[in-house]
Amino acid sequence: MDPRRITWPRTIDMNDRALRDVVLGLGGMGNGVPREERWVIVPASEIMAVLSLATSRADLEARLARILVGSTAGAERKPVTAGDLKASGAMALLLKDAVRPNLVQTLEGGPAIVHCGPFGNIAHGCNSVLATRSALAVADVVVTEAGFGSDLGAEKFLDIKCRAGGLNPEVAVVVATVRALKLNGGAKKTELTREDLGALERGLVNLDLHVENMRQFGLPPVVAVNRFGTDSDAELQMVADRARSLGARVALNEVYARGGAGGEELGREVMAQLAAGGANYAPLYDTGLSIREKVDTIVRRVYGGDGADFAPKAARAAEYLESIGLGKTPVCIAKTQYSLTDDATRFGRPTGFRITINELYPAAGAGFVVAQAGDIMTMPGLPKVPAAEHMAVKPNGEIVGLS
Amino acid sequence: MDPRRITWPRTIDMNDRALRDVVLGLGGMGNGVPREERWVIVPASEIMAVLSLATSRADLEARLARILVGSTAGAERKPVTAGDLKASGAMALLLKDAVRPNLVQTLEGGPAIVHCGPFGNIAHGCNSVLATRSALAVADVVVTEAGFGSDLGAEKFLDIKCRAGGLNPEVAVVVATVRALKLNGGAKKTELTREDLGALERGLVNLDLHVENMRQFGLPPVVAVNRFGTDSDAELQMVADRARSLGARVALNEVYARGGAGGEELGREVMAQLAAGGANYAPLYDTGLSIREKVDTIVRRVYGGDGADFAPKAARAAEYLESIGLGKTPVCIAKTQYSLTDDATRFGRPTGFRITINELYPAAGAGFVVAQAGDIMTMPGLPKVPAAEHMAVKPNGEIVGLS
Amino acid sequence: MDPRRITWPRTIDMNDRALRDVVLGLGGMGNGVPREERWVIVPASEIMAVLSLATSRADLEARLARILVGSTAGAERKPVTAGDLKASGAMALLLKDAVRPNLVQTLEGGPAIVHCGPFGNIAHGCNSVLATRSALAVADVVVTEAGFGSDLGAEKFLDIKCRAGGLNPEVAVVVATVRALKLNGGAKKTELTREDLGALERGLVNLDLHVENMRQFGLPPVVAVNRFGTDSDAELQMVADRARSLGARVALNEVYARGGAGGEELGREVMAQLAAGGANYAPLYDTGLSIREKVDTIVRRVYGGDGADFAPKAARAAEYLESIGLGKTPVCIAKTQYSLTDDATRFGRPTGFRITINELYPAAGAGFVVAQAGDIMTMPGLPKVPAAEHMAVKPNGEIVGLS
Amino acid sequence: MDPRRITWPRTIDMNDRALRDVVLGLGGMGNGVPREERWVIVPASEIMAVLSLATSRADLEARLARILVGSTAGAERKPVTAGDLKASGAMALLLKDAVRPNLVQTLEGGPAIVHCGPFGNIAHGCNSVLATRSALAVADVVVTEAGFGSDLGAEKFLDIKCRAGGLNPEVAVVVATVRALKLNGGAKKTELTREDLGALERGLVNLDLHVENMRQFGLPPVVAVNRFGTDSDAELQMVADRARSLGARVALNEVYARGGAGGEELGREVMAQLAAGGANYAPLYDTGLSIREKVDTIVRRVYGGDGADFAPKAARAAEYLESIGLGKTPVCIAKTQYSLTDDATRFGRPTGFRITINELYPAAGAGFVVAQAGDIMTMPGLPKVPAAEHMAVKPNGEIVGLS
Repeated sequence: MDPRRITWPRTIDMNDRALRDVVLGLGGMGNGVPREERWVIVPASEIMAVLSLATSRADLEARLARILVGSTAGAERKPVTAGDLKASGAMALLLKDAVRPNLVQTLEGGPAIVHCGPFGNIAHGCNSVLATRSALAVADVVVTEAGFGSDLGAEKFLDIKCRAGGLNPEVAVVVATVRALKLNGGAKKTELTREDLGALERGLVNLDLHVENMRQFGLPPVVAVNRFGTDSDAELQMVADRARSLGARVALNEVYARGGAGGEELGREVMAQLAAGGANYAPLYDTGLSIREKVDTIVRRVYGGDGADFAPKAARAAEYLESIGLGKTPVCIAKTQYSLTDDATRFGRPTGFRITINELYPAAGAGFVVAQAGDIMTMPGLPKVPAAEHMAVKPNGEIVGLS
Repeated sequence: MDPRRITWPRTIDMNDRALRDVVLGLGGMGNGVPREERWVIVPASEIMAVLSLATSRADLEARLARILVGSTAGAERKPVTAGDLKASGAMALLLKDAVRPNLVQTLEGGPAIVHCGPFGNIAHGCNSVLATRSALAVADVVVTEAGFGSDLGAEKFLDIKCRAGGLNPEVAVVVATVRALKLNGGAKKTELTREDLGALERGLVNLDLHVENMRQFGLPPVVAVNRFGTDSDAELQMVADRARSLGARVALNEVYARGGAGGEELGREVMAQLAAGGANYAPLYDTGLSIREKVDTIVRRVYGGDGADFAPKAARAAEYLESIGLGKTPVCIAKTQYSLTDDATRFGRPTGFRITINELYPAAGAGFVVAQAGDIMTMPGLPKVPAAEHMAVKPNGEIVGLS
Repeated sequence: MDPRRITWPRTIDMNDRALRDVVLGLGGMGNGVPREERWVIVPASEIMAVLSLATSRADLEARLARILVGSTAGAERKPVTAGDLKASGAMALLLKDAVRPNLVQTLEGGPAIVHCGPFGNIAHGCNSVLATRSALAVADVVVTEAGFGSDLGAEKFLDIKCRAGGLNPEVAVVVATVRALKLNGGAKKTELTREDLGALERGLVNLDLHVENMRQFGLPPVVAVNRFGTDSDAELQMVADRARSLGARVALNEVYARGGAGGEELGREVMAQLAAGGANYAPLYDTGLSIREKVDTIVRRVYGGDGADFAPKAARAAEYLESIGLGKTPVCIAKTQYSLTDDATRFGRPTGFRITINELYPAAGAGFVVAQAGDIMTMPGLPKVPAAEHMAVKPNGEIVGLS
Repeated sequence: MDPRRITWPRTIDMNDRALRDVVLGLGGMGNGVPREERWVIVPASEIMAVLSLATSRADLEARLARILVGSTAGAERKPVTAGDLKASGAMALLLKDAVRPNLVQTLEGGPAIVHCGPFGNIAHGCNSVLATRSALAVADVVVTEAGFGSDLGAEKFLDIKCRAGGLNPEVAVVVATVRALKLNGGAKKTELTREDLGALERGLVNLDLHVENMRQFGLPPVVAVNRFGTDSDAELQMVADRARSLGARVALNEVYARGGAGGEELGREVMAQLAAGGANYAPLYDTGLSIREKVDTIVRRVYGGDGADFAPKAARAAEYLESIGLGKTPVCIAKTQYSLTDDATRFGRPTGFRITINELYPAAGAGFVVAQAGDIMTMPGLPKVPAAEHMAVKPNGEIVGLS
C-alpha cells in the first residue's frame, strides 16, 4: 500500500478546521510514515453513508469490507479495501447497536425515526434504509425527507437510496416558499419580506423544474407552500395557481406556526394523491452506463444543463474507477444547493450551462461514486465566538449556554 | 498568543502513533495557522490529572481555568490559560458527571471505586482524590494503589496526591516478588523461574531501599510477597527473613491464585500494623524550594543518587516557570520504572549516579511540574497485529475477539 | 505581512521535484514561522521575466521594487512588494552584470545574442528587450524567436514584449512542418514518417489560423517549411501551395541539414517581404480592458474559441488584482502548446470551445498577469536515471557523461 | 532506502533559518515521498570536509563515494552511500576545479593559500590538506591556522587533518590576549579594557592548559601575545612572564596595528624554536579505540574533565556506527568555543566536569565521526536588519552597502 495513495481520511467528531489539511507521521521511525492527511467529521465519513444504506447487519459488514482505503504502490495500483486490512469485523462490532433505528416522538407525540446523518454533499443525505423499512413495516404512510431540491436531495434519494433499499415511493411533496421563489426571480436577499409579484412570477420557472423532475422519476407531485408571516395573499395565490397549472395538487403548509394542525391540509392532499395513484417510480439512469454518461444524464435531465465536463484529474479518476470495477454504481453529485448550476449565484431556471466535475471519489462501501462540482467542505470550522465560551455549570448544578 | 508557543496538545482516545508529531493548519487561509502539534491520548491529558486531583466541582473548574495552554508572542511571553480562552466553563460542563467516582464490585462482591486514570509518567498515576475521600467516608480501612515502586508510584502518591487531597495514610504495603528481586540481583530475564538464591540475595538491596523510603515518609511498611508458582520455599523464606530483619511485618500474598482467601494473611498484618500505630506521614519536601532543589531532593533521598542535572532546555524551562509563578508546586518526575536511575538497564540499588532532566513541563491545572528524565510516550502505538483484526460479530449476534 | 499570504516562492537552480510543495519554518521559535512553500527553478522566477523586460538598469530596479511578495493580514489585505521589504537594491546589485546581453557566435561565425530565459508558460518566453534593442542598434535586420505557435509565443511576444520594449516588428515568419500538420490532421504520432496527403490536407487548417493570426497583429507572414528527411515532395508541395493560397510568401528551410546555406531561400523571402513593406503592427487589445475581457479577447480572436471561464478562485484573484491596481497590464496565458484549446489532445483548428482559467497570478514587476489554463510545472523533476549517474572525471582528467 | 533514514541534508549557500527543519515531497505522487528534511549551508556540508581532507582527485572521488546518505528499511538497516547511488562521479566532476588550492597574496605581497572552509563544529575547521601540502612543496616554513584554542582547533588539526594528510608539524603558536585571559579570570565582558592584574593572574590557568596541551601532542609551544591598544604594559608583562615560566618562547604580536613588521618578533621566535628542534608530533589517541573511549580520552586529556556521558540516542548511534565498520576513525567533537566544558559560561580551567554527547553523526567520506556536545547550528539565520537592506547600485554604477 502506497502511503501517498491512501484515500481514507481520519475522522473525528469535532469542528476543527485546522485538521482539514495536515502532515502526520513526523518525528522519525517510531512514528509511522510521513504523509499528508485530511480529517473529516463523522457525518462526512463514508461509514455514515454505509450505515444508512445497509439493509442488514450482514450487508453492513459486507459494505464495510468493500470500503476502498487506498491502493498499492507502482504502476499496478491495485485497490486496497478495509476488508483487505481485516478491519471490517471490528467496525461491524463497533456499529452493532448503531445499526438499530432510533424511535423518538414529536412535540405532539407522533412517532418519528431519526437514524443516520450522512452529509448531503459527499453522500446522499437521507436517513437510513433500515429506518424507512422499519417505518414501512408498521405504518400505512411513511414520510421521509430528502433535503435541498429535486436536483440534490430528491435525485439522490431516488437514484441512490431507493435503488439500494428497494423502496418504492408513491408521491413526492415539493416544498416551495414565496421567499425562495422571489429570490429565484431576481429579488434581493434583503427585500424578500416585501411583496414583489414580478420577481415571484419570474422565479416560478424554478418551481416548474422541480415539479417536472418529480414526474420524470414517475412520482405524482404535491406542492406544499410553506407559509411565512411576510408572504402576501396575492403571492401565496400566485404560487398555488402556478402549481395547479402544472397539474399538481397544492396545500398551504403552516406547520411551523401552528404545529400538526397547520399541516392537515397538506396531509389531506397527500392522502388524496395516494388514493388517486398514478405513481410509477423508476430511477433516472441505468447504472450500467459509464460514469461520465451518468453524470451527464443527471446534468441534462435534472439540472436542465447541456452536460458535464470532467477536469483532467476527474477524468483520470473515472477511468481508474472503471478499470477496477467501480464504475457500475449510481453517482452522487456534490453541487451547491443555491443554484441548478455549479455557480451559486445563478438563480431561476438557467439553460445553456455545463457543469465541471473537479474531483471524483469512490464510496465503494456505500455503493456510489462522488462527483464533485466545486469545493466540498468535509470538516467545518467554529464561529468567531464559539458557543463553548458561554457554557458553564452553575454552583447549584444548573447548566447554562447549551441553547 | 504565539502559535509556536502553544503547549496544549490535541487529545484523542485512540492509539495512533502517527499523531505524535504532526503539522496542521495547512491548506491556506481558511484552515487556520500552520503549526506543529503533538497529540496525546486521554490518560496523558492534563485534564485527567486535573480531574483526579480535584476536591470538588468548584475546585475542578478552578483547576481547569488555570491550565496553561501557551504564551503570548514576543519577549514578554505572558502565559495564556484555559480560563483566558473562556474554555473552562464548557470543560467543567463536559466533566459534570465524570467527576463522580464509579463504584464497582470485585468478583467476590467487595466494593471498589475505579475513578480516573492519569498516566503514571506524565502525571501522578493514582486514582482520584474524590474516590479516596468517598471511600474514607464509608469504610474503616481504604486500600489504594500507587504503582511502580517507592520511587515512582509511592513518591508521587505521597508528595502529590496526599498533599493535594489532604490525605493522611497510615501504613504502606510494599509488594515484592522473588522474580523481580532476582532480576535486581543480576539473574537473566529468561531464567527467573529457576531457583537462584545467590541472585535473590544480591537483589534484596532493592527491597531494602523501598522499605527505607516508606519510613522516610513516616509510614510503617508491611511487605507483601506476591507468590508465583515457580518460587521455591527457600526463596520465599529468604525474602520474608530480609523483610523481618528490616523491622517490617511480612505476609505471603496469594490473591492471584486463591482470590480473597489468598490475601487474608496480608489483611491481618495490615490490620495489626494499623492497630500498632506509629505512622507520622509527611511529604518529602517543602514546595517552597526551587524546582531544581525539589528534583534534586527526590533523586538523592528517594532514588539514592547524587543529584539531578538539567539539560539547557529544562534549565530554561525551570527559570521561566518560576518567573511566571509556577515554581511553588510539587514536581512529578517521569522516569523509567525498571531502574532507580534513568537508565533502564541498571538494576539493584545503584549509587553514585545522577539523573538528567531533559524537559520540564508545567501542569498548572493539576498543580505540579513534570520533570522528564528520558523519553515520555504520550501516544502509544498499536501492536504489529492489532487486536481489531480478530474482532467480529457473528451472524447470531455473538461477539468475538474482545478478549 | 501574513505568512499564509506570501506568494513569492523560494527559487533554486536545481530540478528537485520534492521542493514543489513543502512546509518550512518547523522546529520552534528560532526557525521562523511554519508555513507552506513552493519552490521554483530560476527560469520560472518572476525575476527572470523582470530582467528580460527591463529597458535599463533604472527600469530593472523599479520593476524589482514593484514585485508583489504577499499581502498583509486581516481583511485589508494590503499588497506587500519587494520594495517595501527594501530588497530591490540588493537584487539590482546582484543583477548588475546579468543585465548585459551576451554576444555569442553561431557555428558559422554569425553574431547572436543569447540573453534571459523566462519560462514560456508562467512568463512570456522570449529573450530580453535589451538584447533585441542592442541588436537593432547595430544590424539592419534582427531575427528573434518566440516559440510555440501564434497562440503562445507570438501572442506574448507581440502583446507583452513589443509593448514593453517599444519594438515594432515588420514581418512574421510562421514555421511549419509537414509532420506537425499531419498530426493536426489526425495522423498517429507513430506514423508521421509515412506520406499521408489526406491527414496533411485536413491539418492545414491549423496553418491557416497561424497565418491569419499574424495578419491580425498587422504583420505580413512568411511561411517557412522546415524540411525533414521523411517528408515527401508531394507533401512539401501541398504545404507550400496552401501557404501561397493564403497570400503568404513561402520558403523551404533546410538549416538543420545544410546550415546557413539551407536558409538562404528563407532569407531571400524575408528580405523581399521587408522590401515590400505593408507591416502595421499593433497589439491585440487595449490594456485598459478588464482582466477577464483581455483573456476573453485572446481566446476568441487568437485561439478561435468562444471565450474564457474563470474558476471561482481565479475570479476572486481577478477582482483582487484589479482592486489593488494591477488590472491594467497585459495578460500572459499559460496553456498547453499541443492544442489551441486547453485540452492537449484536441488538434487541428477546433471551434466552439471555451478555455477555463484555474488560477491567476500577478507578475507586478514583469508587468503582466498570468492566467493559468491547466497545470503549470514550475519545478521540473529528474528522469528515472538522472544524467548524473554517467558523469565522471577519468584519472587523466577527461570528463565523461556531459553529453 | 528508507526515506525516514536519509541522513544526508540538502545544502544551499544562503542563511535561511526557515530551512533548518522542513517537510518536503508533499502534494502527491508526482512530488516524491513526504519526509522531514534539514538544510545546511555549504561550509556545514560533509562535502566541504571531504574536499579539505582529500589528498588527490582519486582520493576525493573515493571519499565522496564513501559518504553515507542513509540506510535501508527494516531491521537490517544497511548503510547506503553516495557511491551506491552512483552520485560520486558527478560530484567529483563538479569539484574538478574546486580541488585546486587558491593562491592569493597578502596586502604586503606575501603569498597565502586560501582553500576550503569546513565549519569548525560539525567538521574539523582547517584549510585543505592539498593547500598545506602545496605550500610545503615550495616553502621552508608553512604557517596554518586552526582556530578556537587547543581544545577545538588544535585538537582537530592534530588528530584529524595531520593524521589524514600525513603532516608533521614542528611548532605550535599559542595565541593569547590579555582581554581573553582576564575574562577567563572572572572579569566582566564590559570591563576588559580596564587594567585588572588580579583577574589576569586568575585567568592564566587557561593559558597553562593550552600550552600543556601542545606539549601532549609533542609540539614545542611559542606563545604569541596579540596586543590590543587597551592592554597595559604590566598586563602584557605578566602574560609573557607566565609563558616563560612554562618554558615557552614568547613574542608580542602587533600584526593588526603594524602589519608584517609587527610580526617580526614572533617570526624570530618561531624560527628559533624550529632551529632548536624538539618536536615529536603524535596524535592523541589510537583510532582503534571504541568511539566512546576516543571521546573520553579527549575530554580527560585535552579538556581536563572527568570523562564523557553519551545520551541514549548517541549511545545507540555509537553502537550502530561500530556495527557497520565506521568506528575506527578519529572523532570530531562539536563543543562551545567559550569554555573547556560544554557549558559556555564556565571560564578559566574547570575541573571535575563531564561532557554529555547528545548526538553522534558519521562523516564517512571525511573520515571521522561527529560527537555533538550541545546544539549545533548548521544553518545560520539573518540579523534583524539584513545587510541586503543597505545594498544598492547608484545610477552611476557605484555599488554601496557591501561593507
